[in-house]
Amino acid sequence: MAVNLPALDPAKLFPVAGVELSVAEAGVKKPNRKDVLVIRLDKGNTVAGVFTQNRFCAAPVQIAKRHLDAGVQIRALVVNTGNANAGTGEDGRARALAVCRAVADEIGCEVEQVLPFSTGVILEPLPADKIVAALPTRRAAGWADAAEAIMTTDTLPKAASRRVEIDGHTVTVTGIAKGSGMIHPNMATMLGYLATDAAITRPLLQQLVKEVADQSFNCVTVDGDTSTNDSFMLISTGKSELPLISEANDAYQAVKAALLEVAVELAQAMARDGEGATKFITVTVEGGRSRDECKAVAYAIAKSPLVKTAFFASDPNLGRILAAIGYAGVTDLDVDRLELYLGDVLVARDGGRNPEYKEEDGQRVMNEAEITVRVVLGRGEAAATVWTCDFSYDYVRINADYRS
Amino acid sequence: MAVNLPALDPAKLFPVAGVELSVAEAGVKKPNRKDVLVIRLDKGNTVAGVFTQNRFCAAPVQIAKRHLDAGVQIRALVVNTGNANAGTGEDGRARALAVCRAVADEIGCEVEQVLPFSTGVILEPLPADKIVAALPTRRAAGWADAAEAIMTTDTLPKAASRRVEIDGHTVTVTGIAKGSGMIHPNMATMLGYLATDAAITRPLLQQLVKEVADQSFNCVTVDGDTSTNDSFMLISTGKSELPLISEANDAYQAVKAALLEVAVELAQAMARDGEGATKFITVTVEGGRSRDECKAVAYAIAKSPLVKTAFFASDPNLGRILAAIGYAGVTDLDVDRLELYLGDVLVARDGGRNPEYKEEDGQRVMNEAEITVRVVLGRGEAAATVWTCDFSYDYVRINADYRS
Repeated sequence: MAVNLPALDPAKLFPVAGVELSVAEAGVKKPNRKDVLVIRLDKGNTVAGVFTQNRFCAAPVQIAKRHLDAGVQIRALVVNTGNANAGTGEDGRARALAVCRAVADEIGCEVEQVLPFSTGVILEPLPADKIVAALPTRRAAGWADAAEAIMTTDTLPKAASRRVEIDGHTVTVTGIAKGSGMIHPNMATMLGYLATDAAITRPLLQQLVKEVADQSFNCVTVDGDTSTNDSFMLISTGKSELPLISEANDAYQAVKAALLEVAVELAQAMARDGEGATKFITVTVEGGRSRDECKAVAYAIAKSPLVKTAFFASDPNLGRILAAIGYAGVTDLDVDRLELYLGDVLVARDGGRNPEYKEEDGQRVMNEAEITVRVVLGRGEAAATVWTCDFSYDYVRINADYRS
Repeated sequence: MAVNLPALDPAKLFPVAGVELSVAEAGVKKPNRKDVLVIRLDKGNTVAGVFTQNRFCAAPVQIAKRHLDAGVQIRALVVNTGNANAGTGEDGRARALAVCRAVADEIGCEVEQVLPFSTGVILEPLPADKIVAALPTRRAAGWADAAEAIMTTDTLPKAASRRVEIDGHTVTVTGIAKGSGMIHPNMATMLGYLATDAAITRPLLQQLVKEVADQSFNCVTVDGDTSTNDSFMLISTGKSELPLISEANDAYQAVKAALLEVAVELAQAMARDGEGATKFITVTVEGGRSRDECKAVAYAIAKSPLVKTAFFASDPNLGRILAAIGYAGVTDLDVDRLELYLGDVLVARDGGRNPEYKEEDGQRVMNEAEITVRVVLGRGEAAATVWTCDFSYDYVRINADYRS
């Protein structure tokens, strides 16, 4: 029951020249569902990524990082759902490599030129043999199919696409993502893959992947509070006519803007499809001394189970938001300077309830499916925005039943 | 549906000489329920407390701290439920003081000699007039009655008591507490009041209240992640025959041990009665370099909604525990040295699943109502324990319905 998340229209997802997608049903966890995606790349591409900070980072994450660091030309990414291959030690790495090797043999490249990704249950051996056996059975796919193949508890596939004109050349950006549990603090794995046909040097692409992640996917998850498998990959195929971008010039900014639009749409889609979500919530914190402290306050609100259950109940129990602001760790916060808005309604100021605030005004905003919480800290110029959802019975049901 | 939390037996709650309890029904939020408790103290007592770190600390917390800091003889504590008087600014402080003044007038003491406490909904004006009007209607109460009068979403009252012989003299310790939501991260308010007839100097009592809180109530909540109203007060009436304790001698250690037993029983009772709890979970982390890092790992496990929903489902989905350990913030953690036990079952070692681990062994432990998770970090001598509960449908129901 995702919040205002439309079904994908394959016609609106533009192919990216130099990227070839294919999917298979390997029966990793359950039969008869797409659970393997191969993203094959033409030569001449560059790839960059950011990965989970979790100390128990999964075997495929370790391998993907190592292969990226080797500096070789990447030729394929292979993604499976149904098993995270995490907490699996040396044996897990061997299984991830076995999958890479099978893909590499098919392409005729080195194993280091293939990047593996997994998502699903932790601490169970990856059935690499099933995945390898299914590789020859896979069929060509579009981005919508690809988005479906990487879903776990997502209720809808997530993809977004843009075509922009830059210096007279058409540039395409298309991406897919999965992840719905993660919008609550700790959680289910987020995977994101964005491809553009713009040509971008590897160092610049590495800078870009961090900047884009920081303003999109990292606004629905918590730095450090990442799952064992979180990964976000940026692919530049260089097939557009736009000349190679090797510095942060206007073309770079234009490509970045397009990438960011796609990434933000995908990140918001994750919150809209949060496990059990009935409301999409935007938390904006302004007037802070730094972006970090604004993010800390925004996350304290967005993560609070008490706040999130109140949203589920459409209950303007706004004291819970104030309490969350109070424990966000801004130790010298002057609560008397703070303003709290629910939608357009000024709820609290001068350290307490706004005397003009009426419960029915709060209730009106609470009844909506999309709600903005705005906090003005009154101590600086920085700001940050976080997207989240409410916290419902279904969150518990989904996570209590996940393995069964 | 508290986990193994028996109903109170008033006969096992020993009175503390010098403490006089009384309760009233003021109708603060709902009619016909005990919602005001007055703890009246004879002269000659000492009182010390620890309070929430929340920047939005409630009006009564501000007043109680100010009165304690004034160094005057405390003569009464007055507690109401149904309204937290938090986020209420200057008007909230005036209302808290009005309640103190009414109690002080009755006793014939100064307003600074009365400490106010409130718990309940945030951001609404305290109906101080109702409380003041109800004061003359209150009736003498025992500790069990007192424990009932401070309940909010608690399903059972919480009290504990000990009598010990120290240097040939009988010393009594009796306490009450409320708080059930707080065992999930961000919480309902926790209030705790422990009284002993041992005579202890104020500086020593202040040291004691911190030490006891750190090893009891602070093991079910998160430092800094406290509600607007959390308070834990220690009362020493000095009515026992044991000579005044003015240094940390053997008598001090014996009193501390008795206080700690009572406080731990109350703290565990809060986790047993956690909102929606069906299981009582003890998380012990050993072999850390510091108590702080052990606590961080224990809290990461105890707070994870994914871990807690798996406990609710009795699902040995133990990878979720490993993932929580991985994001606990111990950045140089070597996961290959770590051991994870569920009850007596070794689940993970060498960075992955224990080869001898069988799902049915994990399932056997998961089916129990009381479960211990033990993590051995393998990098030092420090340890920490945290108590929590599972995360059920009822948590959502309780917190979505709280105001209605």
